[in-house]
Amino acid sequence: AVAADAQAGRAKALQCQACHGMDGKSRLPEAPHLAGQVESYLVKALKAYKTGARKDEQMNLMAKPLSEADIANLAAFYSSLKP
Amino acid sequence: AVAADAQAGRAKALQCQACHGMDGKSRLPEAPHLAGQVESYLVKALKAYKTGARKDEQMNLMAKPLSEADIANLAAFYSSLKP
Repeated sequence: AVAADAQAGRAKALQCQACHGMDGKSRLPEAPHLAGQVESYLVKALKAYKTGARKDEQMNLMAKPLSEADIANLAAFYSSLKP
Repeated sequence: AVAADAQAGRAKALQCQACHGMDGKSRLPEAPHLAGQVESYLVKALKAYKTGARKDEQMNLMAKPLSEADIANLAAFYSSLKP
């Protein structure tokens, strides 16, 4: 386990913003809102996208290079935002 | 396509509430909040759970018997709730 760092997650989220926004509000009909989402659910989702257990062309590409720390930080960042 | 009926979705959501709440707020660390989520994303997720394209033991069981109308109604209901 790694200590989550929402500030580091914010920096990493620059690559997520085109679809999910820096505010965690979806920019596309097929992308979910992430603001205020359950942190442990976001970790689970990103891990599943990284391994390919959960399939989505775009998200598999985005999640593949993420480290365990990146995932924890992104989940901490997006879960901390006001929905 | 079917016209979505949030009231019918509310009735159907009785079977979702143990994990997602009637208010769309997660009751479990592994379950996402659904309140105010993007309607088209919820439809996509439920269809993927129904077909098994998206794998989750519990959600595959829950989504399997849902009709296209049930899915549209559930998505209309949960997306209409305040996050």
